[in-house]
This record gives sequence, structure tokens and C-alpha cells, in this order.
Amino acid sequence: MTKSGSEQTDDKMEKVWVAPRRIEELFEKSGGNAWGKINAPTAGARDLHDPAPAPVPNKDLVLYSLGTPNGLKVAIVLEELGLDYNYHRIDISKGDQFKKFFVDVNPNSKIPAMIDRNGPGGAPVRLFESIAIAMYLVEKEQKFFFENDPASKLEATNWLIWQVGSQGFPIGNFGHFFVYAPKDAADARDYGVSRYGMEALRLCDVLEKHLHEGKKTYLVGETYSVADMICFPWVWQLLQGSYVQPDGLTAAEFLGIREKFPTMCEWAERIATRPAVQAAIDRASKPDL
Amino acid sequence: MTKSGSEQTDDKMEKVWVAPRRIEELFEKSGGNAWGKINAPTAGARDLHDPAPAPVPNKDLVLYSLGTPNGLKVAIVLEELGLDYNYHRIDISKGDQFKKFFVDVNPNSKIPAMIDRNGPGGAPVRLFESIAIAMYLVEKEQKFFFENDPASKLEATNWLIWQVGSQGFPIGNFGHFFVYAPKDAADARDYGVSRYGMEALRLCDVLEKHLHEGKKTYLVGETYSVADMICFPWVWQLLQGSYVQPDGLTAAEFLGIREKFPTMCEWAERIATRPAVQAAIDRASKPDL
Repeated sequence: MTKSGSEQTDDKMEKVWVAPRRIEELFEKSGGNAWGKINAPTAGARDLHDPAPAPVPNKDLVLYSLGTPNGLKVAIVLEELGLDYNYHRIDISKGDQFKKFFVDVNPNSKIPAMIDRNGPGGAPVRLFESIAIAMYLVEKEQKFFFENDPASKLEATNWLIWQVGSQGFPIGNFGHFFVYAPKDAADARDYGVSRYGMEALRLCDVLEKHLHEGKKTYLVGETYSVADMICFPWVWQLLQGSYVQPDGLTAAEFLGIREKFPTMCEWAERIATRPAVQAAIDRASKPDL
Repeated sequence: MTKSGSEQTDDKMEKVWVAPRRIEELFEKSGGNAWGKINAPTAGARDLHDPAPAPVPNKDLVLYSLGTPNGLKVAIVLEELGLDYNYHRIDISKGDQFKKFFVDVNPNSKIPAMIDRNGPGGAPVRLFESIAIAMYLVEKEQKFFFENDPASKLEATNWLIWQVGSQGFPIGNFGHFFVYAPKDAADARDYGVSRYGMEALRLCDVLEKHLHEGKKTYLVGETYSVADMICFPWVWQLLQGSYVQPDGLTAAEFLGIREKFPTMCEWAERIATRPAVQAAIDRASKPDL
């Protein structure tokens, strides 16, 4: 790495960070990993001059997704509800998320996104962000969201928003620094793994204490709900996912997940053994069906 | 920094990151900033043996918050709805978020959180995460959330979840690396400022294109809604907030926000001039009222 963003002090000979005047001077520093050619500081479709054709659906629900933890969230909800849907795989490594037909559904270019061709008043409606999709589906089907218990529904909503606001991003960024960041960015990886790994542990401990001290089978009382479906995939990513070092060291071993959070792990296994969850894990990893 | 987590290859003499066996070996690396004594990989109350007394409310709505962008979200919603509430400032620099009375409301120890002492069935209910609070309040008051227009309500929900799932965390983490990370962590700061700053720009461009290409006054059509209230504060943080270098360089200058995203800035100024938003900015920065 160049030292353009740092300088040495005379007395201690330690580097002190000095910001360049414009962020563009730094872009090369985060561009050296597998996603460097895809990430950009701009939004919008990249195939406006020669737009790819949109997939042609034959069902009301059209899911654009991929077998990531965020994709798995919606896949579980769909399978638990027993809904039929078209699944179109968006290959984010090939830039499918920047094709016009997808940006029209999600201007943020992230999976999952969905169209319900039979939305309010029978008109099509677009849904983006996994929690918006999940809440829409359980509200529409009147299942798994405490339809007759407003207080429990509010507690479930707390956990839904906690998942998207607090749980997902730090765990995903732990994965970036643990696995995907450039191999020569050693100081940045030490710092990022520590920062986001520590937060991942704290978030697991939030679940552990909530379940253990509250003697809970599921997140909201004794009833399996959309809150469990949504909070499960990022825990599963830490337990069984793709964050593995070249020498085989897993994120679960590195973080000590099983020793530190036994109640959370029991809860995750309880969810993982459900047939609908197994079907979702299976389906989310496949191409178009 | 020590080099415990790296090694040199013989041919290229460049450092290659090697993970230690346990994350605990790295904790010191992210502990050197102002928050190092407060952050920990555990959840739960820290004053169980001598719990601090809970504030005594005299209104139904009891808000625990602080003048951060996440605190401002809920303050704006409360002011726009014209609701009366107790405001108890949670000083996160002094560890108020780890006091038992607060953890009982939010097991995740983050502001904002709220109790409605007149919740469903007249019973008290706890709410944590700003979006859960915001959705609860606008649903209860039947204002600002497209009560009679289900399609617009779904589009507003898309943007609410986009804010919490996509917008807030990268901007906040840009701020960490731009302002709060240890001054000698130069390589980590270069990397983090580039990574999260690039994403902050992309997120601003999502708003810019949505507003400009859609010729929109507000996020959902022409009607000011809870989606605008919620997506405003992190944009405002980039435009007017506390992310400033010691030499005065602001985040807005560094990122080029005003030149790159004029339509988003007009939208933000439109919201900022609303009396309720001004009142929220004012009130959120004060101690208990």
C-alpha cells in the first residue's frame, strides 16, 4: 500500500492518519478484492443502452434472489407459508444486480427483491429489502406474525428490525475482513476482524441472553414466528456458512460460537431442522426454478 | 501495531494476512479509540448488583434517546405527529445504555428505545430500533404512512427498511474510520474510509437518481411521509453533521456531496426547514425535558 494518506511524527516515529482532500484518492485501497470490479460509488442500471430482457414469470410472486443469508431469509418465509413463486437467481458476481429489469424492482441493486403481480387492488407491486418482503408476505397470508396478539406482534417487529438494523451488517462485514478483503491488507484486516467480530459476538450474546435468561424456545414467547425465520440465517452463516480460512479455520471456531452461545445454537438447530427451512436452504442455492 | 497477524512471503516481500486462532488475540486492535473502554463482546446489564433507578415518567410515551442520527429519526416522527412524551437522554459515552432499566427496554443496548405505557389493551409495551418505533407511532396515529393507499404504504415500507438495512450502517462506519478510529491505524483508516465512503456515495446516488429521474418532491410520490422523516437524518449527518477532520475538512467536502447529489440536497433542505424537524433537532440535542 502507498503511504499517501499517512505521515510520520518526529518524536514517536508512528504513522498518524491524515485524510486526503477527496475520497477519490483512496478508492484503489478498497478495490483490490474479488468485488473490486463490481463495487462503484454510483447507483442505477448499467445496461441502459442494451438492456437485458426481464425474466418472464408465470406466477404471481416473482422472487429475485441468491443463496446468501439475506436471500435465505425470504426463501424461508416463502417455504413456511407454502407459497408458489418464480425464483430468478441474480448472480451478483456477474453484475445481474445492475441490469435495468432488476434496478426497476430494486433501485438499491441488492438481493432479495420481489414483485407481486397480484398486489393491492390486483395491480403489480415492487418490494425490496428482505424485511419489507417478509412483513408483506406474512401480513398478506395472516400467518406467523401474531395476527391476534398485538403486543407479541410488536415484540416480533422489534426483532425483525433488530435483525436488519443491527445484526446483519456487522456479521457480513466481519466476513469481508475475515475472508474477502485483499490478502495483503494485513493491518486493515486485523482491525476489521476485531471490530466487526467483537460486534458479532455481542449480537450473538444478545440472542443468547434473551433466549437463556428468558427461558424461551423461540424469540417471541413459545411460538415460532417470522422473527425466528428472519434472525436465523445470519446465525447460521456463522455456524455453517462460507466464512472459512484457507487452512480450514471456520468462523464458528475462530469466534468460539458453540462454547459461548449454547442456547442460541440450540435455537438455531431447532429452526434448521424444520422441513421448510431445509427446503429453503436447498432451493436458495439453485439457479432458476 | 504488532505484526502477530501477518507474515512475509519470500518472493514478493509483501505482508499476507493470516488469521490468528482466536479472535481474542485481536481485541486490542480495535480498542484504541474513544469507545474502546465501552465496547465489549458481551450483552446485558452491567449494574445488576447495584442497579440505577429508572427515570420516573409522567406521560404515556417514554423515549430513551440521544441527539444522534438514529435518535433524530424518532424525534422527528414524534414532533411531526405532535405527540407529548418524556425524553430521557441516554449518555452512551457514560455507559447509560448498559444500565438495567434501559436493557429491560432494549436488550441490544442501543438508542433509541421507547415504552408506551398505554400500549395494546392499555398495557405497557417496549419498542426498540428506530424503525419499529416509527412504524408503531405512525400506525397508531394513522398519519404520514398512506393509511388509505396500500401500494404507496408498501413503497414507503421499502424505503423505511432500506434506511435501516442499507443506508445507516455504512454511513456510520464511514464516520468511524474518518473521525473516530485510532489516529495511528493509518492503513485501516485508509481502507475503511474508502470502503464505507464509497458505499455512502452509492447510497446517496440511490436517493439522487430516485428523486431526480422520478422528478419526485418526496420519496413516495408528492406526499411527505414517514419515509422522508426516516431517510433524512443520515443524509443530514453527511451534510451538516459531526464528521469533521481536525483541519476543518468536512465529510460533505471530502465526499463531494453537494456537487454530486444536488437533487438529494434540495430534498434534505426541504425537510430540514420544516418546523417540526427543527424542533426535533433542537430537542434531541438537549438533556431530559
